[in-house]
Amino acid sequence: MAHNEDKNTKGWVGYRPEIKVIDCTIRDGGLMNDHNFETGLVHQVFKTLVESGIDYMEVGYKADKKIFSSDKFGKWKFSEEDDIKKMIGENEAGIKISVMADAERTDYKAIPNKSESAIDIYRVATYIHQIPTAVEMIKDFTAKGYETSVNLMAVSTVREDEIDAAMEVFAETPVETIYVVDSFGSMYCEQIQNLVRKYRKYADPAGKQIGIHAHNNQQLAYSNTITAIVEGANFLDATLDGMGRGAGNCPLELLVGFLHNPKYHIRPILECLKDHIYPIKEQLNWGYKVPYMITGQLNQHPRTAISFLKQEDSSDIVKFYDSVIQEDS
Amino acid sequence: MAHNEDKNTKGWVGYRPEIKVIDCTIRDGGLMNDHNFETGLVHQVFKTLVESGIDYMEVGYKADKKIFSSDKFGKWKFSEEDDIKKMIGENEAGIKISVMADAERTDYKAIPNKSESAIDIYRVATYIHQIPTAVEMIKDFTAKGYETSVNLMAVSTVREDEIDAAMEVFAETPVETIYVVDSFGSMYCEQIQNLVRKYRKYADPAGKQIGIHAHNNQQLAYSNTITAIVEGANFLDATLDGMGRGAGNCPLELLVGFLHNPKYHIRPILECLKDHIYPIKEQLNWGYKVPYMITGQLNQHPRTAISFLKQEDSSDIVKFYDSVIQEDS
Repeated sequence: MAHNEDKNTKGWVGYRPEIKVIDCTIRDGGLMNDHNFETGLVHQVFKTLVESGIDYMEVGYKADKKIFSSDKFGKWKFSEEDDIKKMIGENEAGIKISVMADAERTDYKAIPNKSESAIDIYRVATYIHQIPTAVEMIKDFTAKGYETSVNLMAVSTVREDEIDAAMEVFAETPVETIYVVDSFGSMYCEQIQNLVRKYRKYADPAGKQIGIHAHNNQQLAYSNTITAIVEGANFLDATLDGMGRGAGNCPLELLVGFLHNPKYHIRPILECLKDHIYPIKEQLNWGYKVPYMITGQLNQHPRTAISFLKQEDSSDIVKFYDSVIQEDS
Repeated sequence: MAHNEDKNTKGWVGYRPEIKVIDCTIRDGGLMNDHNFETGLVHQVFKTLVESGIDYMEVGYKADKKIFSSDKFGKWKFSEEDDIKKMIGENEAGIKISVMADAERTDYKAIPNKSESAIDIYRVATYIHQIPTAVEMIKDFTAKGYETSVNLMAVSTVREDEIDAAMEVFAETPVETIYVVDSFGSMYCEQIQNLVRKYRKYADPAGKQIGIHAHNNQQLAYSNTITAIVEGANFLDATLDGMGRGAGNCPLELLVGFLHNPKYHIRPILECLKDHIYPIKEQLNWGYKVPYMITGQLNQHPRTAISFLKQEDSSDIVKFYDSVIQEDS
């Protein structure tokens, strides 16, 4: 298969060693419970990822406490150094710790140097109009010794020429990885293909990698991740059972089954699903459902579907469809 | 998008008029309840498909009563003319009725001429070693006035040169459509792409169409259907909520959202999901689950996963994984 057609491998029986897997279970899953995970559960996920050979674990956001109340949000909204260190415990395994930093919602200047931190990479999330802030953040994190990546959010609503302009700007920053992000789970394989190719036009000459972060509104998160791999993306986001906002993400267990790098192991992932993830699924309620399909098909933010599914009676999908379709435009 | 790049359409805002959608809800779903659907439910599905503009409805198998007992199996295992006519009722809508006929399990010689039948198309399912029988069936059905298609089953376990030989044989029959079938839900987009291209090499010169029937073991049924569309497949199998054996099929509601032909309507489909399909889901228990993922990843028939999931305690996915992995080969 194309994803393994490197010179040093033999078709699909080989693998592409450059590929890195980033588990976002706790970060993206936290959007379903305001980041209120017990430290014990987060540690179990950490342990699982170490045992399965996953390259990065994203634990949460670095939200500004002046903007977000720690009464409402759990500790993984803020990802304080002490909480991360306590969660990791004695484990000296080589997995890298990732934190997401939203442009305009992160007090990034207060963040210490890498030498004083348990965090390895800051992943900067930015809408198109926030790019100047994102660039400042990338520079600041880099100067402090962190690895960085950048997510251009809601790209399915951005004009082509503006995407090009954004890529030109990112190419000039020290950011290591530029992510194709399907925020609304609205994209088909050809759109993923086109975006990875476009991003690579700017990223390749600048020596940067491409990442993929997909949502499962149309049951395409895994397949869009494969498409991105085939097109050369090397940084792959996934979560246990696809846990994440709304329809969720690319399931880690499917992705690890696809990659043939012997450093990845699926059995610890299955154990964690059984013992720790399935038991919280009913409460957090992520995963593919028709209301998410509808917002995905319409290229809309899933917020209407999320709020519909939180209602007492969320079974009337026709009512939801009518409400979305009959909105004035 | 490529699936709409015909000369007479305008990119993805157009559609490909040659495309036909075949709903297999009752036929493939029947594999989860031995085809014991109430006629009332089957009629509701029929009504829904008529209202949504779906082209074909597959109601069941034409199994030989000398081989299969009607004590054990419901009427949609046998799809008798009287049962079909009673189910359709007064409705004179133009939807075509399809029945699947397994090679070596169908008393095809006893089937009447099309002029005496409510059935429009016989879809012949054959394993590679049954092809001579399948060819006889295709010829017989054609002579009697029926449309035909052929499914080469379990193709993921067949050698390349044997697939070529099968296609050469099919190209010489009067069959109208040759299906790419991912029986085990084990295929990735590149394998679907390769198979559609290979099948078309034989089908195109013979004036035959390509169909796609996908299974959802790896959450790829819908995306593999899209890949097949992009490669030129025009006969698309789908089912309500993906209802079907094991992990199920390509969900009709997703597929209709992707196709832009204004003759298809999604709202009646959503109504049927809510009123008739979701209420039987817990009992029939189709849909993506990790044991199906495991058999799909290993390119195995899902029967071990189906029997595991029928057990009292089917939550120990690690035990299932171990049992499949530790089998002697």
